[in-house]
Amino acid sequence: MSTPRIDVYFSPSELRRELKGKVAVVVDVLRATSTIVEAFANGAKTIYPVATTEDAVNLKQTLDREDVLLSGERRSRPIEGFDLGNSPREFTAEAVADKTIIMTTTNGTPALLLGDTADRCIVAAFLNLDAVASELAEGDRPVAILCAGREGRFATEDALFAGLLVRSIRAKRTGAVRLNDAAFAATALERRYRVHLHRVVAHTSAARQIIDAGLAEDIAYCLTVSRHNVVPVMSDRHITL
Amino acid sequence: MSTPRIDVYFSPSELRRELKGKVAVVVDVLRATSTIVEAFANGAKTIYPVATTEDAVNLKQTLDREDVLLSGERRSRPIEGFDLGNSPREFTAEAVADKTIIMTTTNGTPALLLGDTADRCIVAAFLNLDAVASELAEGDRPVAILCAGREGRFATEDALFAGLLVRSIRAKRTGAVRLNDAAFAATALERRYRVHLHRVVAHTSAARQIIDAGLAEDIAYCLTVSRHNVVPVMSDRHITL
Repeated sequence: MSTPRIDVYFSPSELRRELKGKVAVVVDVLRATSTIVEAFANGAKTIYPVATTEDAVNLKQTLDREDVLLSGERRSRPIEGFDLGNSPREFTAEAVADKTIIMTTTNGTPALLLGDTADRCIVAAFLNLDAVASELAEGDRPVAILCAGREGRFATEDALFAGLLVRSIRAKRTGAVRLNDAAFAATALERRYRVHLHRVVAHTSAARQIIDAGLAEDIAYCLTVSRHNVVPVMSDRHITL
Repeated sequence: MSTPRIDVYFSPSELRRELKGKVAVVVDVLRATSTIVEAFANGAKTIYPVATTEDAVNLKQTLDREDVLLSGERRSRPIEGFDLGNSPREFTAEAVADKTIIMTTTNGTPALLLGDTADRCIVAAFLNLDAVASELAEGDRPVAILCAGREGRFATEDALFAGLLVRSIRAKRTGAVRLNDAAFAATALERRYRVHLHRVVAHTSAARQIIDAGLAEDIAYCLTVSRHNVVPVMSDRHITL
Protein backbone atom coordinates (compact mmCIF):
# COMPACT_ATOMS: atom_id res chain seq x y z
CA MET A 1 0.00 0.00 0.00
CA SER A 2 1.24 3.49 -0.76
CA THR A 3 1.93 5.99 2.00
CA PRO A 4 -1.27 7.81 3.01
CA ARG A 5 -1.42 11.46 1.95
CA ILE A 6 -2.60 14.52 3.82
CA ASP A 7 -2.83 17.56 1.57
CA VAL A 8 -3.75 21.07 2.69
CA TYR A 9 -5.31 23.64 0.36
CA PHE A 10 -5.08 27.19 1.68
CA SER A 11 -8.17 28.33 -0.20
CA PRO A 12 -10.74 26.89 -2.61
CA SER A 13 -8.93 28.70 -5.44
CA GLU A 14 -6.04 26.23 -5.02
CA LEU A 15 -8.29 23.31 -5.96
CA ARG A 16 -8.07 22.52 -9.63
CA ARG A 17 -9.72 19.11 -9.51
CA GLU A 18 -12.69 17.57 -7.76
CA LEU A 19 -12.00 15.53 -4.67
CA LYS A 20 -13.24 12.09 -5.74
CA GLY A 21 -11.54 9.27 -3.85
CA LYS A 22 -10.65 11.56 -0.96
CA VAL A 23 -11.96 12.59 2.42
CA ALA A 24 -12.38 16.35 2.43
CA VAL A 25 -12.18 18.34 5.66
CA VAL A 26 -13.62 21.84 5.30
CA VAL A 27 -12.24 24.50 7.64
CA ASP A 28 -13.52 28.05 8.15
CA VAL A 29 -12.50 28.73 11.72
CA LEU A 30 -13.72 32.37 11.65
CA ARG A 31 -16.55 31.48 11.65
CA ALA A 32 -18.71 29.28 9.42
CA THR A 33 -17.46 25.83 10.38
CA SER A 34 -17.23 26.79 14.06
CA THR A 35 -20.84 27.90 13.89
CA ILE A 36 -21.92 24.69 12.14
CA VAL A 37 -20.22 22.53 14.77
CA GLU A 38 -21.85 24.57 17.53
CA ALA A 39 -25.26 24.24 15.86
CA PHE A 40 -25.06 20.44 15.68
CA ALA A 41 -23.74 20.20 19.23
CA ASN A 42 -26.92 22.06 20.21
CA GLY A 43 -29.29 19.78 18.34
CA ALA A 44 -29.67 21.29 14.86
CA LYS A 45 -31.13 18.76 12.42
CA THR A 46 -29.82 19.83 9.01
CA ILE A 47 -27.83 22.74 7.58
CA TYR A 48 -27.98 23.78 3.94
CA PRO A 49 -25.06 26.01 2.85
CA VAL A 50 -26.06 28.17 -0.11
CA ALA A 51 -24.20 30.75 -2.16
CA THR A 52 -26.41 33.84 -2.04
CA THR A 53 -29.06 35.46 0.15
CA GLU A 54 -31.51 34.98 -2.75
CA ASP A 55 -30.72 31.25 -2.83
CA ALA A 56 -31.38 31.14 0.91
CA VAL A 57 -34.77 32.81 0.65
CA ASN A 58 -35.76 30.68 -2.34
CA LEU A 59 -34.74 27.44 -0.64
CA LYS A 60 -36.79 28.38 2.42
CA GLN A 61 -39.85 28.84 0.18
CA THR A 62 -39.15 25.52 -1.57
CA LEU A 63 -38.79 23.62 1.71
CA ASP A 64 -42.06 25.22 2.89
CA ARG A 65 -41.74 24.11 6.51
CA GLU A 66 -42.08 25.87 9.84
CA ASP A 67 -38.81 24.67 11.38
CA VAL A 68 -36.51 26.46 8.93
CA LEU A 69 -34.17 29.30 9.99
CA LEU A 70 -32.19 31.64 7.76
CA SER A 71 -28.64 32.46 8.87
CA GLY A 72 -25.43 33.97 7.56
CA GLU A 73 -23.29 37.06 7.17
CA ARG A 74 -21.96 39.58 4.71
CA ARG A 75 -18.77 41.41 5.73
CA SER A 76 -19.07 39.58 9.08
CA ARG A 77 -22.42 41.25 9.86
CA PRO A 78 -25.86 39.61 10.17
CA ILE A 79 -28.09 39.78 7.06
CA GLU A 80 -31.21 41.92 7.39
CA GLY A 81 -34.35 39.89 7.80
CA PHE A 82 -32.50 36.66 8.60
CA ASP A 83 -33.13 34.78 11.87
CA LEU A 84 -29.50 34.32 12.83
CA GLY A 85 -26.09 35.76 11.92
CA ASN A 86 -22.89 33.74 11.85
CA SER A 87 -21.88 33.89 15.53
CA PRO A 88 -21.58 30.46 17.15
CA ARG A 89 -22.85 32.05 20.36
CA GLU A 90 -26.26 32.64 18.72
CA PHE A 91 -26.69 28.96 17.84
CA THR A 92 -27.92 27.88 21.27
CA ALA A 93 -30.07 24.80 21.88
CA GLU A 94 -32.99 27.14 22.45
CA ALA A 95 -32.48 28.70 19.03
CA VAL A 96 -31.54 25.71 16.87
CA ALA A 97 -32.59 22.35 18.43
CA ASP A 98 -34.46 20.26 15.82
CA LYS A 99 -34.27 23.11 13.32
CA THR A 100 -33.28 23.08 9.67
CA ILE A 101 -30.90 25.95 8.98
CA ILE A 102 -30.13 27.59 5.66
CA MET A 103 -26.77 29.36 5.83
CA THR A 104 -24.95 31.71 3.48
CA THR A 105 -21.47 32.95 4.35
CA THR A 106 -18.78 34.64 2.27
CA ASN A 107 -15.97 32.09 2.45
CA GLY A 108 -17.40 29.01 4.17
CA THR A 109 -20.11 28.22 1.66
CA PRO A 110 -17.91 27.98 -1.46
CA ALA A 111 -15.48 25.72 0.42
CA LEU A 112 -18.29 23.45 1.63
CA LEU A 113 -19.76 23.10 -1.84
CA LEU A 114 -16.34 22.10 -3.21
CA GLY A 115 -15.77 19.72 -0.31
CA ASP A 116 -19.03 18.04 -1.24
CA THR A 117 -17.31 16.66 -4.39
CA ALA A 118 -15.25 14.33 -2.15
CA ASP A 119 -16.24 10.77 -1.17
CA ARG A 120 -16.84 12.05 2.34
CA CYS A 121 -16.88 15.68 3.48
CA ILE A 122 -16.34 16.54 7.14
CA VAL A 123 -16.92 19.94 8.75
CA ALA A 124 -14.09 20.85 11.14
CA ALA A 125 -13.12 23.60 13.56
CA PHE A 126 -11.14 23.93 16.77
CA LEU A 127 -14.44 23.20 18.54
CA ASN A 128 -14.51 19.57 17.28
CA LEU A 129 -10.79 18.97 16.65
CA ASP A 130 -10.44 15.76 18.61
CA ALA A 131 -13.55 14.11 17.15
CA VAL A 132 -12.41 14.92 13.59
CA ALA A 133 -8.81 13.82 14.17
CA SER A 134 -10.02 10.52 15.66
CA GLU A 135 -12.14 9.76 12.61
CA LEU A 136 -9.37 10.68 10.17
CA ALA A 137 -6.77 8.63 12.04
CA GLU A 138 -8.89 5.52 11.38
CA GLY A 139 -9.16 5.50 7.61
CA ASP A 140 -6.51 5.24 4.93
CA ARG A 141 -8.11 7.30 2.18
CA PRO A 142 -6.17 10.41 1.21
CA VAL A 143 -7.21 13.45 3.22
CA ALA A 144 -7.70 16.91 1.69
CA ILE A 145 -7.94 19.67 4.28
CA LEU A 146 -9.69 22.50 2.45
CA CYS A 147 -9.30 25.89 4.13
CA ALA A 148 -12.01 28.40 3.28
CA GLY A 149 -9.42 31.16 3.42
CA ARG A 150 -10.56 34.67 2.70
CA GLU A 151 -11.85 35.79 -0.68
CA GLY A 152 -9.87 33.05 -2.38
CA ARG A 153 -6.69 33.77 -0.47
CA PHE A 154 -4.63 32.38 2.41
CA ALA A 155 -6.02 33.03 5.90
CA THR A 156 -3.75 32.49 8.90
CA GLU A 157 -6.39 31.13 11.29
CA ASP A 158 -7.43 28.35 8.90
CA ALA A 159 -3.80 27.46 8.19
CA LEU A 160 -3.04 27.24 11.92
CA PHE A 161 -6.01 24.93 12.41
CA ALA A 162 -4.96 22.81 9.42
CA GLY A 163 -1.51 22.43 10.95
CA LEU A 164 -2.99 21.44 14.29
CA LEU A 165 -5.25 18.88 12.61
CA VAL A 166 -2.33 17.34 10.71
CA ARG A 167 -0.40 17.06 13.96
CA SER A 168 -3.40 15.56 15.80
CA ILE A 169 -3.97 12.92 13.10
CA ARG A 170 -0.31 11.94 13.16
CA ALA A 171 -0.36 11.70 16.94
CA LYS A 172 -3.23 9.21 16.70
CA ARG A 173 -1.93 6.91 13.97
CA THR A 174 1.38 5.22 13.38
CA GLY A 175 3.35 5.09 10.14
CA ALA A 176 4.56 7.59 7.60
CA VAL A 177 2.32 10.20 6.01
CA ARG A 178 2.99 12.19 2.85
CA LEU A 179 2.33 15.92 3.13
CA ASN A 180 2.08 18.47 0.33
CA ASP A 181 3.96 21.79 0.57
CA ALA A 182 1.00 23.54 2.22
CA ALA A 183 0.58 20.81 4.84
CA PHE A 184 4.27 21.11 5.67
CA ALA A 185 3.98 24.90 5.99
CA ALA A 186 0.77 24.72 8.04
CA THR A 187 2.43 22.31 10.45
CA ALA A 188 5.44 24.59 10.80
CA LEU A 189 3.25 27.65 11.44
CA GLU A 190 1.19 25.83 14.03
CA ARG A 191 4.29 24.63 15.84
CA ARG A 192 5.62 28.19 15.90
CA TYR A 193 2.42 29.91 17.06
CA ARG A 194 0.79 27.20 19.17
CA VAL A 195 1.33 29.05 22.43
CA HIS A 196 0.42 32.45 20.94
CA LEU A 197 -2.70 31.31 19.08
CA HIS A 198 -5.10 33.93 20.43
CA ARG A 199 -2.69 36.80 19.90
CA VAL A 200 -1.81 35.77 16.33
CA VAL A 201 -5.40 35.14 15.29
CA ALA A 202 -6.49 38.50 16.74
CA HIS A 203 -4.30 40.20 14.11
CA THR A 204 -5.61 38.31 11.08
CA SER A 205 -7.62 40.00 8.39
CA ALA A 206 -10.72 37.97 9.30
CA ALA A 207 -10.47 38.77 13.01
CA ARG A 208 -10.09 42.48 12.37
CA GLN A 209 -13.32 42.53 10.38
CA ILE A 210 -15.13 40.59 13.13
CA ILE A 211 -13.82 43.00 15.78
CA ASP A 212 -14.98 45.94 13.64
CA ALA A 213 -18.44 44.37 13.51
CA GLY A 214 -18.53 44.37 17.33
CA LEU A 215 -18.28 40.58 17.59
CA ALA A 216 -14.84 40.18 19.16
CA GLU A 217 -16.06 37.59 21.66
CA ASP A 218 -16.70 35.19 18.79
CA ILE A 219 -12.97 34.90 18.17
CA ALA A 220 -12.01 33.40 21.53
CA TYR A 221 -15.04 31.13 21.33
CA CYS A 222 -14.00 29.81 17.90
CA LEU A 223 -10.52 29.01 19.28
CA THR A 224 -11.88 26.76 22.03
CA VAL A 225 -10.39 23.32 21.39
CA SER A 226 -12.48 20.11 21.33
CA ARG A 227 -15.48 21.47 23.18
CA HIS A 228 -17.87 19.28 21.20
CA ASN A 229 -17.71 15.61 20.26
CA VAL A 230 -19.59 15.90 16.96
CA VAL A 231 -18.55 15.32 13.33
CA PRO A 232 -20.93 17.08 10.94
CA VAL A 233 -20.87 15.54 7.47
CA MET A 234 -21.83 17.20 4.21
CA SER A 235 -23.40 15.13 1.47
CA ASP A 236 -25.62 16.03 -1.47
CA ARG A 237 -25.54 19.74 -0.58
CA HIS A 238 -26.65 19.48 3.04
CA ILE A 239 -24.96 18.83 6.37
CA THR A 240 -26.13 16.38 9.04
CA LEU A 241 -24.50 14.56 11.93
CA MET B 1 -0.02 59.18 4.45
CA SER B 2 -1.30 55.70 5.13
CA THR B 3 1.04 52.91 6.24
CA PRO B 4 2.68 51.25 3.22
CA ARG B 5 1.43 47.74 2.46
CA ILE B 6 3.32 44.61 1.50
CA ASP B 7 0.98 41.81 0.45
CA VAL B 8 2.05 38.30 -0.50
CA TYR B 9 0.00 36.09 -2.81
CA PHE B 10 0.97 32.42 -2.60
CA SER B 11 -0.16 31.70 -6.17
CA PRO B 12 -1.74 33.53 -9.10
CA SER B 13 -5.05 31.86 -8.21
CA GLU B 14 -5.19 34.06 -5.08
CA LEU B 15 -5.33 37.21 -7.21
CA ARG B 16 -8.87 38.34 -7.84
CA ARG B 17 -8.09 41.82 -9.08
CA GLU B 18 -5.55 43.42 -11.36
CA LEU B 19 -2.58 45.10 -9.76
CA LYS B 20 -3.06 48.71 -10.89
CA GLY B 21 -1.46 51.21 -8.51
CA LYS B 22 0.94 48.59 -7.14
CA VAL B 23 4.46 47.36 -7.68
CA ALA B 24 4.32 43.63 -8.44
CA VAL B 25 7.24 41.34 -7.65
CA VAL B 26 7.00 38.02 -9.45
CA VAL B 27 8.72 35.05 -7.81
CA ASP B 28 9.27 31.57 -9.24
CA VAL B 29 12.41 30.50 -7.46
CA LEU B 30 12.38 26.99 -8.98
CA ARG B 31 13.17 28.05 -11.65
CA ALA B 32 11.72 30.61 -14.06
CA THR B 33 12.57 33.87 -12.30
CA SER B 34 16.00 32.55 -11.26
CA THR B 35 16.67 31.73 -14.90
CA ILE B 36 15.47 35.16 -16.06
CA VAL B 37 17.76 36.93 -13.57
CA GLU B 38 20.67 34.76 -14.66
CA ALA B 39 19.95 35.49 -18.33
CA PHE B 40 20.00 39.27 -17.83
CA ALA B 41 23.11 39.09 -15.66
CA ASN B 42 24.73 37.38 -18.65
CA GLY B 43 23.68 39.97 -21.19
CA ALA B 44 20.33 38.84 -22.56
CA LYS B 45 18.50 41.68 -24.32
CA THR B 46 14.80 40.85 -23.99
CA ILE B 47 12.72 37.94 -22.70
CA TYR B 48 9.16 37.26 -23.84
CA PRO B 49 7.23 34.94 -21.49
CA VAL B 50 4.46 33.15 -23.40
CA ALA B 51 1.82 30.63 -22.34
CA THR B 52 2.28 27.73 -24.74
CA THR B 53 4.93 26.10 -26.90
CA GLU B 54 2.79 27.03 -29.94
CA ASP B 55 2.78 30.68 -28.85
CA ALA B 56 6.58 30.49 -28.54
CA VAL B 57 7.05 29.10 -32.05
CA ASN B 58 4.56 31.59 -33.52
CA LEU B 59 6.20 34.57 -31.82
CA LYS B 60 9.59 33.49 -33.13
CA GLN B 61 8.16 33.47 -36.67
CA THR B 62 6.56 36.88 -36.12
CA LEU B 63 9.76 38.43 -34.77
CA ASP B 64 11.60 36.96 -37.78
CA ARG B 65 15.10 37.70 -36.51
CA GLU B 66 18.26 35.66 -36.17
CA ASP B 67 19.03 36.49 -32.53
CA VAL B 68 15.94 34.77 -31.09
CA LEU B 69 16.16 31.68 -28.85
CA LEU B 70 13.33 29.44 -27.69
CA SER B 71 13.46 28.25 -24.06
CA GLY B 72 11.27 26.62 -21.44
CA GLU B 73 10.14 23.43 -19.78
CA ARG B 74 7.26 21.06 -19.35
CA ARG B 75 7.28 18.91 -16.21
CA SER B 76 10.73 20.44 -15.47
CA ARG B 77 12.21 18.96 -18.68
CA PRO B 78 13.48 20.81 -21.76
CA ILE B 79 11.04 21.11 -24.69
CA GLU B 80 11.97 19.16 -27.82
CA GLY B 81 13.33 21.38 -30.57
CA PHE B 82 13.87 24.38 -28.28
CA ASP B 83 17.31 25.99 -27.90
CA LEU B 84 17.37 26.09 -24.10
CA GLY B 85 15.52 24.48 -21.19
CA ASN B 86 14.78 26.26 -17.91
CA SER B 87 18.08 25.70 -16.06
CA PRO B 88 19.82 28.93 -15.05
CA ARG B 89 23.10 27.13 -15.63
CA GLU B 90 22.35 26.95 -19.38
CA PHE B 91 21.88 30.72 -19.67
CA THR B 92 25.58 31.58 -19.90
CA ALA B 93 26.94 34.74 -21.54
CA GLU B 94 28.06 32.56 -24.44
CA ALA B 95 24.51 31.30 -24.94
CA VAL B 96 22.41 34.41 -24.28
CA ALA B 97 24.42 37.66 -24.61
CA ASP B 98 22.53 40.12 -26.84
CA LYS B 99 19.85 37.53 -27.53
CA THR B 100 16.08 37.83 -27.47
CA ILE B 101 14.62 34.85 -25.61
CA ILE B 102 11.09 33.48 -25.83
CA MET B 103 10.29 31.46 -22.71
CA THR B 104 7.38 29.23 -21.77
CA THR B 105 7.25 27.64 -18.32
CA THR B 106 4.45 25.97 -16.39
CA ASN B 107 4.10 28.29 -13.40
CA GLY B 108 6.34 31.27 -14.06
CA THR B 109 4.65 32.50 -17.22
CA PRO B 110 1.10 32.87 -15.83
CA ALA B 111 2.48 34.75 -12.81
CA LEU B 112 4.51 37.10 -15.01
CA LEU B 113 1.55 37.89 -17.25
CA LEU B 114 -0.55 38.76 -14.18
CA GLY B 115 2.29 40.80 -12.71
CA ASP B 116 2.32 42.81 -15.93
CA THR B 117 -1.05 44.33 -14.89
CA ALA B 118 0.76 46.30 -12.15
CA ASP B 119 2.20 49.80 -12.51
CA ARG B 120 5.65 48.25 -12.36
CA CYS B 121 6.51 44.55 -12.46
CA ILE B 122 9.85 43.31 -11.12
CA VAL B 123 11.30 39.83 -11.61
CA ALA B 124 12.83 38.49 -8.38
CA ALA B 125 14.72 35.46 -7.11
CA PHE B 126 17.30 34.68 -4.45
CA LEU B 127 19.89 35.49 -7.12
CA ASN B 128 18.96 39.21 -7.16
CA LEU B 129 17.45 39.59 -3.67
CA ASP B 130 19.48 42.57 -2.56
CA ALA B 131 18.97 44.58 -5.76
CA VAL B 132 15.20 44.02 -5.61
CA ALA B 133 14.94 44.80 -1.89
CA SER B 134 16.91 48.03 -2.36
CA GLU B 135 14.55 49.23 -5.10
CA LEU B 136 11.43 48.34 -3.10
CA ALA B 137 12.74 50.02 0.05
CA GLU B 138 12.86 53.31 -1.86
CA GLY B 139 9.29 53.71 -3.03
CA ASP B 140 6.05 54.00 -1.11
CA ARG B 141 3.64 52.35 -3.54
CA PRO B 142 1.99 49.21 -2.18
CA VAL B 143 3.98 46.08 -3.00
CA ALA B 144 2.37 42.82 -4.15
CA ILE B 145 4.74 39.84 -4.02
CA LEU B 146 3.21 37.35 -6.42
CA CYS B 147 4.48 33.79 -5.95
CA ALA B 148 4.17 31.58 -9.02
CA GLY B 149 3.47 28.63 -6.75
CA ARG B 150 2.79 25.29 -8.35
CA GLU B 151 -0.22 24.60 -10.54
CA GLY B 152 -2.17 27.34 -8.78
CA ARG B 153 -1.18 26.23 -5.31
CA PHE B 154 1.17 27.17 -2.48
CA ALA B 155 4.86 26.29 -3.03
CA THR B 156 7.21 26.37 -0.05
CA GLU B 157 10.27 27.69 -1.90
CA ASP B 158 8.44 30.76 -3.23
CA ALA B 159 6.90 31.45 0.19
CA LEU B 160 10.33 31.26 1.86
CA PHE B 161 11.73 33.72 -0.66
CA ALA B 162 8.73 36.03 -0.18
CA GLY B 163 9.36 36.01 3.57
CA LEU B 164 13.05 36.79 3.04
CA LEU B 165 12.16 39.65 0.69
CA VAL B 166 9.70 41.15 3.19
CA ARG B 167 12.39 40.98 5.88
CA SER B 168 15.01 42.51 3.56
CA ILE B 169 12.74 45.43 2.61
CA ARG B 170 11.94 46.13 6.25
CA ALA B 171 15.63 46.03 7.15
CA LYS B 172 16.29 48.74 4.55
CA ARG B 173 13.50 51.15 5.37
CA THR B 174 12.22 52.66 8.56
CA GLY B 175 8.63 52.93 9.70
CA ALA B 176 5.68 50.62 10.00
CA VAL B 177 4.51 48.34 7.21
CA ARG B 178 1.15 46.60 6.89
CA LEU B 179 1.33 42.91 5.96
CA ASN B 180 -1.51 40.68 4.79
CA ASP B 181 -1.99 37.22 6.34
CA ALA B 182 0.22 35.54 3.73
CA ALA B 183 3.05 38.04 4.22
CA PHE B 184 2.89 37.38 7.95
CA ALA B 185 3.00 33.61 7.40
CA ALA B 186 5.81 33.83 4.82
CA THR B 187 7.89 35.88 7.25
CA ALA B 188 7.31 33.34 10.02
CA LEU B 189 8.26 30.41 7.77
CA GLU B 190 11.40 32.14 6.59
CA ARG B 191 12.44 32.93 10.14
CA ARG B 192 11.92 29.29 11.10
CA TYR B 193 13.73 27.70 8.13
CA ARG B 194 16.37 30.32 7.33
CA VAL B 195 19.25 28.14 8.48
CA HIS B 196 17.79 24.96 6.91
CA LEU B 197 16.86 26.50 3.57
CA HIS B 198 18.57 23.94 1.33
CA ARG B 199 17.24 20.95 3.25
CA VAL B 200 13.66 22.26 3.34
CA VAL B 201 13.60 23.26 -0.34
CA ALA B 202 15.03 19.86 -1.36
CA HIS B 203 11.81 18.26 -0.05
CA THR B 204 9.37 20.52 -1.87
CA SER B 205 7.16 19.26 -4.63
CA ALA B 206 8.96 21.42 -7.22
CA ALA B 207 12.42 20.24 -6.13
CA ARG B 208 11.42 16.59 -6.28
CA GLN B 209 10.32 16.97 -9.88
CA ILE B 210 13.56 18.77 -10.78
CA ILE B 211 15.61 16.04 -9.09
CA ASP B 212 13.64 13.40 -11.02
CA ALA B 213 14.50 15.22 -14.23
CA GLY B 214 18.21 14.87 -13.38
CA LEU B 215 18.67 18.59 -12.72
CA ALA B 216 19.36 18.58 -8.97
CA GLU B 217 22.27 21.01 -9.30
CA ASP B 218 19.82 23.72 -10.39
CA ILE B 219 18.31 23.79 -6.91
CA ALA B 220 21.42 24.88 -5.03
CA TYR B 221 22.15 27.38 -7.79
CA CYS B 222 18.68 28.95 -7.49
CA LEU B 223 19.18 29.34 -3.72
CA THR B 224 22.34 31.44 -4.15
CA VAL B 225 21.62 34.80 -2.54
CA SER B 226 22.31 38.16 -4.25
CA ARG B 227 24.75 36.84 -6.83
CA HIS B 228 23.60 39.39 -9.41
CA ASN B 229 22.91 43.10 -9.14
CA VAL B 230 20.18 43.25 -11.80
CA VAL B 231 16.46 44.10 -11.62
CA PRO B 232 14.63 42.75 -14.68
CA VAL B 233 11.38 44.60 -15.33
CA MET B 234 8.35 43.32 -17.21
CA SER B 235 6.25 45.76 -19.20
CA ASP B 236 3.93 45.31 -22.14
CA ARG B 237 4.48 41.51 -22.20
CA HIS B 238 8.27 41.51 -22.35
CA ILE B 239 11.11 41.73 -19.86
CA THR B 240 14.15 44.00 -20.08
CA LEU B 241 16.67 45.42 -17.64
